[in-house]
Amino acid sequence: MKNFMDEDFLLHSETAKRLYHEIASKMPIIDYHCHIDPKEIYEDRRFDNITQVWLGGDHYKWRQMRSNGISERYITGDATDYEKFQKWAETLEKAIGNPLYHWSHLELKRYFNYEGHLCSDTAQEVWEICNQRLHDKDMTVRGIISQSNVEIICTTDDPIDDLKWHELLASDDSFDTKVLPAWRPDKAINIEKEDFVDYLSKLSAVSQIKINSFPSLIDALRARMDYFDKHGCKVSDHGLDYVCYVEAGKEELEEIFQKRLSGHQLSSHEIDAYKTACMCAFAKEYHKRGWVMQLHYGAARNLNQKMFKKLGPDTGFDAISTYASSQQLAAYLNHLAFHDCLPKTILYSLNPSDNAMIGSVIGCFQDESAIGKIQQGSAWWFNDHKAGMIEQMTSLANLGLLGNFIGMLTDSRSFLSYTRHEYFRRILCDLIGTWVENGEYPDDEKALEKIIRGICYENCKQYFGF
Amino acid sequence: MKNFMDEDFLLHSETAKRLYHEIASKMPIIDYHCHIDPKEIYEDRRFDNITQVWLGGDHYKWRQMRSNGISERYITGDATDYEKFQKWAETLEKAIGNPLYHWSHLELKRYFNYEGHLCSDTAQEVWEICNQRLHDKDMTVRGIISQSNVEIICTTDDPIDDLKWHELLASDDSFDTKVLPAWRPDKAINIEKEDFVDYLSKLSAVSQIKINSFPSLIDALRARMDYFDKHGCKVSDHGLDYVCYVEAGKEELEEIFQKRLSGHQLSSHEIDAYKTACMCAFAKEYHKRGWVMQLHYGAARNLNQKMFKKLGPDTGFDAISTYASSQQLAAYLNHLAFHDCLPKTILYSLNPSDNAMIGSVIGCFQDESAIGKIQQGSAWWFNDHKAGMIEQMTSLANLGLLGNFIGMLTDSRSFLSYTRHEYFRRILCDLIGTWVENGEYPDDEKALEKIIRGICYENCKQYFGF
Amino acid sequence: MKNFMDEDFLLHSETAKRLYHEIASKMPIIDYHCHIDPKEIYEDRRFDNITQVWLGGDHYKWRQMRSNGISERYITGDATDYEKFQKWAETLEKAIGNPLYHWSHLELKRYFNYEGHLCSDTAQEVWEICNQRLHDKDMTVRGIISQSNVEIICTTDDPIDDLKWHELLASDDSFDTKVLPAWRPDKAINIEKEDFVDYLSKLSAVSQIKINSFPSLIDALRARMDYFDKHGCKVSDHGLDYVCYVEAGKEELEEIFQKRLSGHQLSSHEIDAYKTACMCAFAKEYHKRGWVMQLHYGAARNLNQKMFKKLGPDTGFDAISTYASSQQLAAYLNHLAFHDCLPKTILYSLNPSDNAMIGSVIGCFQDESAIGKIQQGSAWWFNDHKAGMIEQMTSLANLGLLGNFIGMLTDSRSFLSYTRHEYFRRILCDLIGTWVENGEYPDDEKALEKIIRGICYENCKQYFGF
Repeated sequence: MKNFMDEDFLLHSETAKRLYHEIASKMPIIDYHCHIDPKEIYEDRRFDNITQVWLGGDHYKWRQMRSNGISERYITGDATDYEKFQKWAETLEKAIGNPLYHWSHLELKRYFNYEGHLCSDTAQEVWEICNQRLHDKDMTVRGIISQSNVEIICTTDDPIDDLKWHELLASDDSFDTKVLPAWRPDKAINIEKEDFVDYLSKLSAVSQIKINSFPSLIDALRARMDYFDKHGCKVSDHGLDYVCYVEAGKEELEEIFQKRLSGHQLSSHEIDAYKTACMCAFAKEYHKRGWVMQLHYGAARNLNQKMFKKLGPDTGFDAISTYASSQQLAAYLNHLAFHDCLPKTILYSLNPSDNAMIGSVIGCFQDESAIGKIQQGSAWWFNDHKAGMIEQMTSLANLGLLGNFIGMLTDSRSFLSYTRHEYFRRILCDLIGTWVENGEYPDDEKALEKIIRGICYENCKQYFGF
Repeated sequence: MKNFMDEDFLLHSETAKRLYHEIASKMPIIDYHCHIDPKEIYEDRRFDNITQVWLGGDHYKWRQMRSNGISERYITGDATDYEKFQKWAETLEKAIGNPLYHWSHLELKRYFNYEGHLCSDTAQEVWEICNQRLHDKDMTVRGIISQSNVEIICTTDDPIDDLKWHELLASDDSFDTKVLPAWRPDKAINIEKEDFVDYLSKLSAVSQIKINSFPSLIDALRARMDYFDKHGCKVSDHGLDYVCYVEAGKEELEEIFQKRLSGHQLSSHEIDAYKTACMCAFAKEYHKRGWVMQLHYGAARNLNQKMFKKLGPDTGFDAISTYASSQQLAAYLNHLAFHDCLPKTILYSLNPSDNAMIGSVIGCFQDESAIGKIQQGSAWWFNDHKAGMIEQMTSLANLGLLGNFIGMLTDSRSFLSYTRHEYFRRILCDLIGTWVENGEYPDDEKALEKIIRGICYENCKQYFGF
Repeated sequence: MKNFMDEDFLLHSETAKRLYHEIASKMPIIDYHCHIDPKEIYEDRRFDNITQVWLGGDHYKWRQMRSNGISERYITGDATDYEKFQKWAETLEKAIGNPLYHWSHLELKRYFNYEGHLCSDTAQEVWEICNQRLHDKDMTVRGIISQSNVEIICTTDDPIDDLKWHELLASDDSFDTKVLPAWRPDKAINIEKEDFVDYLSKLSAVSQIKINSFPSLIDALRARMDYFDKHGCKVSDHGLDYVCYVEAGKEELEEIFQKRLSGHQLSSHEIDAYKTACMCAFAKEYHKRGWVMQLHYGAARNLNQKMFKKLGPDTGFDAISTYASSQQLAAYLNHLAFHDCLPKTILYSLNPSDNAMIGSVIGCFQDESAIGKIQQGSAWWFNDHKAGMIEQMTSLANLGLLGNFIGMLTDSRSFLSYTRHEYFRRILCDLIGTWVENGEYPDDEKALEKIIRGICYENCKQYFGF
């Protein structure tokens, strides 16, 4: 029996151990998509206790606590931080097989030097150890990032953001990690949302372009893209229900836009036509600038309306949607390829049944303008666990070139989540190690090193042009 | 090489063996969903031969025999019981990797003490051994149930059932296993079926409530729920093509209902609106009574109309349907949660591609009213095999708290099928044992015992309130 | 560590090794579905170099090269054969985990006696070894087929084909492998395609039946089926977007047909109604003749229109479609079963999420007219890799009788692809060997030999009636 999460955690062969310890573990981290707050990095926030770090905004953990029948008072309510931590510990011991079990213990080991396991019995002990450690000098936000060997972070930012914190960070020589903005224009695309017209006013103000037509909207956004580009932005991100492709002429489009401005409801056909036009216009701009386009789709959000009214979005009430069309996804990419404006693109579906479909679709749009131009993103959100990562990488290997994969990102709101890169790298090395040990790939040191270095770090660096 | 299905069958590590032999194997069985006949339990039926037990009504086996090109004469026709058994034996030897192979041999081992394997060559020998054993005193229906350590059985009953056999069993002190009714009102929901209006007359008669409107239908059913409740019912069950959610006002609903009563055909929109209203009304009642709601969906039934005309339903002509909407499922649960009437609910989809979707949807509706309030049911029907169980439990572990899983049920028509609990428990212990041996969960005896006892027995007992 | 792809490649247990080396490896090959050109067999083509064999028309490899950012010049363009080979070698070293990695090296080992691995560093060496070997006497098309122990090949042929090369091959005593035609009438079914009316003229000419109505179309095709039947055809094949079932009366059907003849566009409903009528008429004929019907569905073709215009079809721009209805598939089979004209049928879906659905649907239509009458085909195209084959066989075993599976086909355009049968057989033997070693199936030599011989060769021979 192996010890619980020891140095060879998840590494089942000698080759796996060698690949991980000698190569993968030494690579810096490029976290090209996450949701952390640049302000907290600039101000170098310090945390009072482990509940703040772990349970302050982590809806992954909140969901598990609700699954354990725990009262909302201990989750998002007014219980004390210690009470919340105790309830989390009680929950975690039932989370056998869950990635949170591994993530939590990797964080305890790597940042808090705690080698036991957290459960109801050890909650008090862990609480004290963590809180004491949080007072150490190197446990501020910047300290955590630095000790995690993070080279580049891309945050997630709205077009109207002034990028003030990114500017301050860029001019601060005391911190080595690059913190770059990423372009996420969901609010300009979600024409069906209540606050859409409001948002356009803000965007008008920031861009100093009066938005009274679809072309003027794109002009305003283009101006903001220029602004983001000047601040080092290399990547966009879209959160879509599904990738749609519904063509509409310029006039029809303008009618839809004006209809919405005048406060009318749109049909789902009109909504999709508008979104298609936006996504085509955006892609063209990304292509021109060499930006990467990330498409996250297949999530159904805020499914529990009662809790949404109480807690708002991103509080643990989202799920996988099985509604998405391979035909529209392919038609969208085809439109861009046909008009020579397909940017480098990463596809993430929340529905794991889409793995093979995506793996086959991306193969239709590769070309010489980039190595691995169209990527299937790393296992996302509900799929970001050992089985999900193995499935995504196996599917990718079956259908494309695993050697060109740009690898892991945290997609996280937490400053401790860099251990997820470790988790990913261990799984990667084990997968490849197993193939080598089984005689399915030659034990060619040079080739293997190139593949591991590539997937952990180098492919990503080259792909985004960092 | 391990011996064929020996005492360590499916147990690949020392931890797995320990968890199974020392804990799981000793837990009583709660079979909270099955299709056995309470009359046969009360009358303590005895079987003449193994064909009666195995091939009398088991359409799983019939399908395999048809796949083997065997004439219907030997399946549901007038061949002798021995001829049928011989054909089954010929078929079974080709069923390598099929759960029937394991189920059949577990039954031969546990109930008939036969340690060989059944094939065309051994059919005669097995036939004789089984038939002789069937004459033993303890091989009546009650004897089989008792030696299987079954504490509670929930049958599947129609609202118009008088529950006579349940009453007789309840008042019979000589039999320790509790046999409780379960509420399955499919006939009241399937408004599109020919016999719907007929069924309402019967329901009127039994409930003594004249059904001439939708509210009076619900009144009648409510009266029957009270009756079932008095007889110890704790659980309902629904067999749905898919979980629909189509809203309709009271008037529209009444129009649909009257349209059907007057013999008109309904549109699929009308059918879904009616079913939605039923399912909302039912859920409210279940919630009030503390009953559990089971939703079995994703089956396409009676696909071979020629054979349906010959043999009727439940004869082996059903399949997995891929038509089901994650959106409507979530909308239905949301409606109930929003109106504070979401009962404890177990979701079973026949489409294994729904695993991750279900695992993510249930996480949106958990709350403090119960531990693991919304459950993903154990791998069902066509998924009830080793791979299917591993996939369901792995998915559940990835997305929720495996420690709160209520575990296995037989869903069976056969009195020998309790070995399926053994099969499940072995797979569970092997899965968890592997994680522990690989250092993915600590070797914490207390925690592991709690998890295994929970999933095999205790979670279920607490969840249903038995 | 095992040596790279040695004689026990993919065989992880003693039982697996025994089953493969003593039984599976000795079985002849029946390649019942492929796309090779009978003319090249008859003329006994010889290749100048390895690029001709490997990269001349293999769009699997082209896709990977595009994924590697390689210019089209080196793929389908005017680069030299050596340059193309070098680019392929650079690509292949990144294809860890991809079936092409294994296929390529199996071909290098079995046909070229090269035991190293191909990568950018060894490209020159491999180029020379292969080209030299290609000059050997036994490395013509016939030589390759003969040394591969191929007993029967079924090509893929259009109804208007005169089968001249099949005739010549049949009368040539110097070549032992039978080369039979297979009936693929896609052009007569794809009424939405531009060249449909044109095709009907050609069909009229060849059949000498004037096609001016739907019945006359079927008459013409029936005449061609007779012609194919006389040439030994035993199997048909259909490439369908999805299996549809839309009923239409004779008059409606004739209207649709005439509408198309007069150059009008059809609605998708009309197209599906026409295709349904064709597929019903065809199935009836296949049933009458004892032919097997193969349905390949779930592919979305020519998704990249820009490249389609440049390179035409079958150049690497196809993908998996997730649009297909289990209901229509079942309804089609039901229609045929109901009218007693369901032929032996093999279902192949390109969407691997359909595995369980197909496994359950075929079980509804089995009958005594053939053993394993309705088959799920071997993992197809994008699923034709180790994981895909294991999934297909595991699913088949879970839901039906793996022992009746008719096994592997190449579906290939390449004369070196017979090693894919070896690949399949190794995976099969390993799967079954593992079950036996784990005590999940008895170590019964006779039963295992029957199963392995069956799946590798005998089931297929019996099923098609070769």
